[in-house]
Amino acid sequence: MASRIRLDGIPTPALLLDLDVLERNVARMAAKVSALGARLRPHVKTHKCIEVGRLQRRHGAEGITVATLVEARAFADHGFDDITWAFPLVPGRLGEVIAIAQRIVLRVVVDGLEALDALAAAARGSGLTIHTWLKVDCGYGRAGVDPRAGASVELARRIAEAPGIAFDGILTHAGHGYLARNRDELVRIAGEEREVMVEFAGRLRDAGVQVPAISIGSTPTMSVAESLEGISEVRPGNYVFHDYMQVANGVCHLADCAVTLLSTVISHQPGSDHAVIDAGALALSKDLGPSEASRGKGLGPVIAASSGALEERVWVRSVSQEHGVLGGASVADVEGRFRVGERVRVLPNHSCLTAAMFDEYYVRRGEEIVDRWKIWRGR
Amino acid sequence: MASRIRLDGIPTPALLLDLDVLERNVARMAAKVSALGARLRPHVKTHKCIEVGRLQRRHGAEGITVATLVEARAFADHGFDDITWAFPLVPGRLGEVIAIAQRIVLRVVVDGLEALDALAAAARGSGLTIHTWLKVDCGYGRAGVDPRAGASVELARRIAEAPGIAFDGILTHAGHGYLARNRDELVRIAGEEREVMVEFAGRLRDAGVQVPAISIGSTPTMSVAESLEGISEVRPGNYVFHDYMQVANGVCHLADCAVTLLSTVISHQPGSDHAVIDAGALALSKDLGPSEASRGKGLGPVIAASSGALEERVWVRSVSQEHGVLGGASVADVEGRFRVGERVRVLPNHSCLTAAMFDEYYVRRGEEIVDRWKIWRGR
Repeated sequence: MASRIRLDGIPTPALLLDLDVLERNVARMAAKVSALGARLRPHVKTHKCIEVGRLQRRHGAEGITVATLVEARAFADHGFDDITWAFPLVPGRLGEVIAIAQRIVLRVVVDGLEALDALAAAARGSGLTIHTWLKVDCGYGRAGVDPRAGASVELARRIAEAPGIAFDGILTHAGHGYLARNRDELVRIAGEEREVMVEFAGRLRDAGVQVPAISIGSTPTMSVAESLEGISEVRPGNYVFHDYMQVANGVCHLADCAVTLLSTVISHQPGSDHAVIDAGALALSKDLGPSEASRGKGLGPVIAASSGALEERVWVRSVSQEHGVLGGASVADVEGRFRVGERVRVLPNHSCLTAAMFDEYYVRRGEEIVDRWKIWRGR
Repeated sequence: MASRIRLDGIPTPALLLDLDVLERNVARMAAKVSALGARLRPHVKTHKCIEVGRLQRRHGAEGITVATLVEARAFADHGFDDITWAFPLVPGRLGEVIAIAQRIVLRVVVDGLEALDALAAAARGSGLTIHTWLKVDCGYGRAGVDPRAGASVELARRIAEAPGIAFDGILTHAGHGYLARNRDELVRIAGEEREVMVEFAGRLRDAGVQVPAISIGSTPTMSVAESLEGISEVRPGNYVFHDYMQVANGVCHLADCAVTLLSTVISHQPGSDHAVIDAGALALSKDLGPSEASRGKGLGPVIAASSGALEERVWVRSVSQEHGVLGGASVADVEGRFRVGERVRVLPNHSCLTAAMFDEYYVRRGEEIVDRWKIWRGR
């Protein structure tokens, strides 16, 4: 970093990353996954940041997972040589896939014949062998093949037998863990994420299809997982930062949240039940959170300057493009509390989408800014 | 532009800008505002694009409005020398304000004494005279002073009398026009936006405070305004592009929408009621639209490839970070309709936030891409 920056000298809105919390989160997940006997291939879509990826690697991550080709190229450029693009293959971007796969091991994901055929043709054209996962739907219902369908076994066989394709195994993501209404439901979803995949692998093996690896995982399901028996690797991502959604859903505590938004109060009228901050959708995103638990706090709660605890009665009630509206249950919760020019920290509802709005983190140790780290945003 | 690009060669997701529609929108608003006898100071927060700003200027725009200092610097760097930063002044960013005001006429907005005092101190320190609007709340209830309060007259007087401050007049934005449930309600809000400001200016003049100008305007209120009597300038922004919110609210027709999102179908499972596209929150944003009218179509309707009309029964039902889910009312609406690899155009709910997710527009005339224009995103 060029010159020392003081926390109160940062232009708002800005994204603060607490290095102590980050390091603790990274170490804790690495230890848990290792203790359960699986490999950790963390998803970097949350942080999009080389320095955080390096920290994860120092703690034993074997390979990484990306959501975009921007992330894939950035990490490949910085010495990450084993990357899974965990996104249904986009046929029109196969040229970019091949270019990256010529430099590192890039693993892609398919869940249908059209994508497989396009991939096989690209592999043939390039002379490369492309590592490929079969995406499975373990109950989320977004993408991935139905593990109970006979056609899914046939698709796996086609992948395994296709020239120019190296079949890596089966992969899933229990995104519906974010919708769990309580811990019991989350535990059930985490169990199913593992069991569905182990069972499907058994059926594939019974049908004569070798399954080199099984890849599962999300931060909510990994937070409650008690067994990873039969699982090769897991791909949680959000755990590096956590956010208010994870607090509301009982996945973590406030002290585990590494990213907060620094903003400035820019308007408050006498007698009004709200104050305006300079952080709107362009800073926080418009993510209200998928769960009932997080919805009550709008776009995210305010962190009390005095205690570091969450304000009980003030949160970002709404956002427009550049404005955020801090509101409370009554005028008394706001009146006289916020002075124009004062800085306010917000705990984002969803740290992944908030980070994706910024170009850099201000990295802090306590009250000191020790570095600035680039965010590789884009698609 | 370096080399000719074909529409089908663009990597998705991508933002397409229809130049014919853009030019028509720009000309139409310019003609309307001119006919009503006001100046047009368009808000560039929608497009964040120098080329679109130049087009507006060729059609008679006098000065522009920005929402961020990134926009202010970019336009100042490209020959725009009269810019209003229509955002409550952020005291911590006064150094940036002064730096821009040393190069061009930068007009700022205050709605309280704290901001005014900070601004006056910065003006004193720099030796500059800073042009300043008083922000008024005409009923939106977000920021701005209450035009009925005596304190608001006193604040205007303080601005007008402050050394180093040039009082530009009073400014408002009827953002609640976006919440109107029908045209009658919108017409009423548009009338109030004008009347509240003309009346407040009258009270200020009666109190001996000269009001050099009155600035109002939004795309919805300007679309229905029949009089701008007493108004100096208007600041609509969204009209250059429009979007599905504006269609749903009756502000424009589908043929008036200049920006669409080009995406690719990346997953569809047999028997499923949805298909997945490669455009999620990182492309469309998570803006569900403020109005009941737009909510039924999720994140935006799909444009039928054959007719260019809106698909009656298919829209972007939900988005996660990189995935969009195209859904219909029933399986039959989707089944067999979308092939993996096929391209689908979506009409965004909110073009401003969608544009803010991208770095460039692919500019089209019909099916030909004729240019790429940079988007000055950030805050």
